Amino acid sequence: MAGCCAGLAAFLFEYDTPRIVLIRSRKVGLMNRAVQLLILAYVIGWVFVWEKGYQETDSVVSSVTAKAKGVTVTNTSALGFRIWDVADYVIPAQEENSLFVMTNMIITMNQTQGLCPEIPDKTNVCKSDADCVAGSTGTHSSGVATGRCVLFNETVKTCEVAAWCPVEYDARAPEPALLKAAENFTLLVKNNIWYPKFNFSKRNILSNITTTYLKSCIYDAITDPFCPIFRLGNIVANAGHSFQDMAVEGGIMGIQIKWNCNLDRAASLCLPKYSFRRLDTRDVDHNVSPGYNFRFAKYYNDLTGTEHRTLIKAYGIRFDIIVFGKAGKFDIIPTMINIGSGLALLGVVSDSDLSVPPGLAPSSAVVSTAR
Amino acid sequence: MAGCCAGLAAFLFEYDTPRIVLIRSRKVGLMNRAVQLLILAYVIGWVFVWEKGYQETDSVVSSVTAKAKGVTVTNTSALGFRIWDVADYVIPAQEENSLFVMTNMIITMNQTQGLCPEIPDKTNVCKSDADCVAGSTGTHSSGVATGRCVLFNETVKTCEVAAWCPVEYDARAPEPALLKAAENFTLLVKNNIWYPKFNFSKRNILSNITTTYLKSCIYDAITDPFCPIFRLGNIVANAGHSFQDMAVEGGIMGIQIKWNCNLDRAASLCLPKYSFRRLDTRDVDHNVSPGYNFRFAKYYNDLTGTEHRTLIKAYGIRFDIIVFGKAGKFDIIPTMINIGSGLALLGVVSDSDLSVPPGLAPSSAVVSTAR
Amino acid sequence: MAGCCAGLAAFLFEYDTPRIVLIRSRKVGLMNRAVQLLILAYVIGWVFVWEKGYQETDSVVSSVTAKAKGVTVTNTSALGFRIWDVADYVIPAQEENSLFVMTNMIITMNQTQGLCPEIPDKTNVCKSDADCVAGSTGTHSSGVATGRCVLFNETVKTCEVAAWCPVEYDARAPEPALLKAAENFTLLVKNNIWYPKFNFSKRNILSNITTTYLKSCIYDAITDPFCPIFRLGNIVANAGHSFQDMAVEGGIMGIQIKWNCNLDRAASLCLPKYSFRRLDTRDVDHNVSPGYNFRFAKYYNDLTGTEHRTLIKAYGIRFDIIVFGKAGKFDIIPTMINIGSGLALLGVVSDSDLSVPPGLAPSSAVVSTAR
Repeated sequence: MAGCCAGLAAFLFEYDTPRIVLIRSRKVGLMNRAVQLLILAYVIGWVFVWEKGYQETDSVVSSVTAKAKGVTVTNTSALGFRIWDVADYVIPAQEENSLFVMTNMIITMNQTQGLCPEIPDKTNVCKSDADCVAGSTGTHSSGVATGRCVLFNETVKTCEVAAWCPVEYDARAPEPALLKAAENFTLLVKNNIWYPKFNFSKRNILSNITTTYLKSCIYDAITDPFCPIFRLGNIVANAGHSFQDMAVEGGIMGIQIKWNCNLDRAASLCLPKYSFRRLDTRDVDHNVSPGYNFRFAKYYNDLTGTEHRTLIKAYGIRFDIIVFGKAGKFDIIPTMINIGSGLALLGVVSDSDLSVPPGLAPSSAVVSTAR
Repeated sequence: MAGCCAGLAAFLFEYDTPRIVLIRSRKVGLMNRAVQLLILAYVIGWVFVWEKGYQETDSVVSSVTAKAKGVTVTNTSALGFRIWDVADYVIPAQEENSLFVMTNMIITMNQTQGLCPEIPDKTNVCKSDADCVAGSTGTHSSGVATGRCVLFNETVKTCEVAAWCPVEYDARAPEPALLKAAENFTLLVKNNIWYPKFNFSKRNILSNITTTYLKSCIYDAITDPFCPIFRLGNIVANAGHSFQDMAVEGGIMGIQIKWNCNLDRAASLCLPKYSFRRLDTRDVDHNVSPGYNFRFAKYYNDLTGTEHRTLIKAYGIRFDIIVFGKAGKFDIIPTMINIGSGLALLGVVSDSDLSVPPGLAPSSAVVSTAR
Repeated sequence: MAGCCAGLAAFLFEYDTPRIVLIRSRKVGLMNRAVQLLILAYVIGWVFVWEKGYQETDSVVSSVTAKAKGVTVTNTSALGFRIWDVADYVIPAQEENSLFVMTNMIITMNQTQGLCPEIPDKTNVCKSDADCVAGSTGTHSSGVATGRCVLFNETVKTCEVAAWCPVEYDARAPEPALLKAAENFTLLVKNNIWYPKFNFSKRNILSNITTTYLKSCIYDAITDPFCPIFRLGNIVANAGHSFQDMAVEGGIMGIQIKWNCNLDRAASLCLPKYSFRRLDTRDVDHNVSPGYNFRFAKYYNDLTGTEHRTLIKAYGIRFDIIVFGKAGKFDIIPTMINIGSGLALLGVVSDSDLSVPPGLAPSSAVVSTAR
């Protein structure tokens, strides 16, 4: 029992420390201080000032809505004089983080279910019924072949298909783009962000923006950096592309909103930063399957109840709104951890990593039993 | 050769260790043990118990579908008695992580392409044709000006536009909201999650939920915390807002599903946790551009083939389903790394960071050549 | 002043180091070297080779478009012979990272607003008007009850509702699926990725893919691993499911694209890797609320201006395209930090963690004043 107590006392009250040698040497002393300085600079400069090691960080949670505005007219032989407004060119009417503006199209009006010849093409030009396999559908065919070979026009015969007739002829997108005036349309982006850890939320319509300003402003990196209304042409130009080129075949533009906030400062300094980038990179020399398009149809019933449809192959620009950012705020835990590991680093390097080469024989050494 | 062997033997078989001083001092000994205890507490308490440093972690991969249910009637002078069901008020019919329920609307029926006067407004009231610039389109105009100034009603003249006529008059959203009964609609959210590292997957329709229960249950934080069917009114109320207020101008609600799972325990303890938040924060005193709305149209052809449309400015609530979570499971690698760095920390601090101030002169010092 | 200078000189030019004992012991020496080797192996093998600790890393930013191709016919008593093409079965026409292909449906044609009896069901079969509450709407009812009990057919009476009439009868999805031929449809996925830190971007249509190849290829893990065109049947089969089973009730398939790139190597080695997974896991023994479906309607106006609609309950497969990946590139900062912490670890463990048990008494000890 007594031995046990003595052991506990020894465990509690005794302390081991290495015997220390004090070396009086300019070279070694200076080298030691220099290494310590380096570590201190690293800990303070890099960990604390640059990486803000004293802050707890959080990633942004965001919600986005986008709304286009603008009207234009087209005057084509097929459609006549026609007005296009937002309900006509935004498809679908709403999406979560994205908005599609149709800039060009191939319209096939008044299709009905029936039988008609395919558009001539390598695979479906035929001489006789023997060239057409009934019931077959190629990847690029518009319908199911009936097995008959019929006249497409006076000179060419193609396989007949059961399809929405007449079938679409989509050889090339119109150039210039039909809705080329979309360059002047505007896009209002509303973005609310939230940092859950700090329960901090903010919107991109800042509190000093008035209804009047919002009715007339257009985003400009220099003059109006906080106006949330973007001219489509400017978005594409800022990303270094030509709107008129992009409008023909379509494409995808990213509108990036960065919310990097230091919440140790005033909330009013936490501001959105906009940037623009084309997301469908396109090698000039490797132009396979360029642009962005899809097909949709508007359905009608006529007097007899037969279903008609207008098929539209829509080319256009999809605007994807990408929100990212990081907020930091002072917090005791990361501060302590970083100070601790900084001190540990200092301790390790001071004590162990400075090997003294033989040439640097100490000019004098004093043994000290405790530091 | 012999020298080389001797050098290698020296390298392999010799070991440097500091000469140790054993200090018998209550103060120093206790301080030393206290610091060690602190570090041990940090390593065990913080790194292992709190941060679960012995676990490998993974982020959730999720897929979501949402489906609304509910019917209501409206009885307005413009539309008459009308039933609204899910195909009428959910637009578009499906989205990836989101569902829009229309709660209010401004309907402009039977528009055709033509010429008509603009709705009077600061910019388009005119006295004579000289006030209207042919071909101009303002950001907020409904069409392209023809350059004529025509009577809007007996007293006011406005610029004539080529547009879908008659143009929409959207001064104010109807109050109370037309589909105010949407408060009682329900939303079934199906959510499948997957933790790729652990190949663990689960759905929010738990295995003890029966078809009968699913037909009648409504989520309630206390009585039915695992029912995946939400009453729209409850979602908004849980987030601290009023459904009827929100229904008028629209807005965005977040349905957050948290899947924090400790996979060292039974899989049945990995459960979803629902919470609700309004994502379009709205300062009471800074009410610029509130709510959420968009326009869409339904197109018709009449007897003569002329295209008509019904334009709808839809106000409503978009429900964004946000899934997040982290799973942890024991893994040898993070355990080893954390134990290792814990030991290292213990070593560093014990040996180097405890400087003994001069006042604490050791009561006795014993030199020991090896620990 | 002189004392101060002397103090500064002492601070700068003096250096403390422990007195070192050199122990000549095979056991202790070998143990020491073994521990050092272990740490070196950990630092080099794990931190540098495995975890690539010398690289700065970045997460992928991606944009996706998807386009389906394919035609099929159905021949049912309700619809007659009918062709289905992409504008008919993709709903909505475009989405951000996702594409829905309808594979099965319940069509209710020619609905108008009116009064009609409910489909018989546990809750709405009635004997007299007393069983029906005027104005009530259950969660699963198709309309608002009028309070009358009317004949549904010769034998059954149900509550009358104001609804889109006739109401939908959706007892069971047709089996086999109506558009079962969707198995042969194809999906072209275009994916552009970007690593912002390295300003590195690439698309999944690699630069050696020609237009001709793209017109005819179909993805296959072994023969065509870089063809971005997927046969729907193959996607489902690769995930280990049956397309025909899935087509009946619908479901969600994930197309995962992994871009793990080591940018220290040639850019042409940074390649996409496709994998497929069913996202709506379905326990065979717990089949509550399976599949994926939603309702949408096509609206028509008849001669008298009355609105009709065709209601479609669409079952189908939603393809969610999930892009993930990490790129790494040599960077001096993480390299330095990892080398530094490796050295520190080596220092700590060499000096402090090797306690010599009493049994291993040193065979000889030499005191050296400086290392």
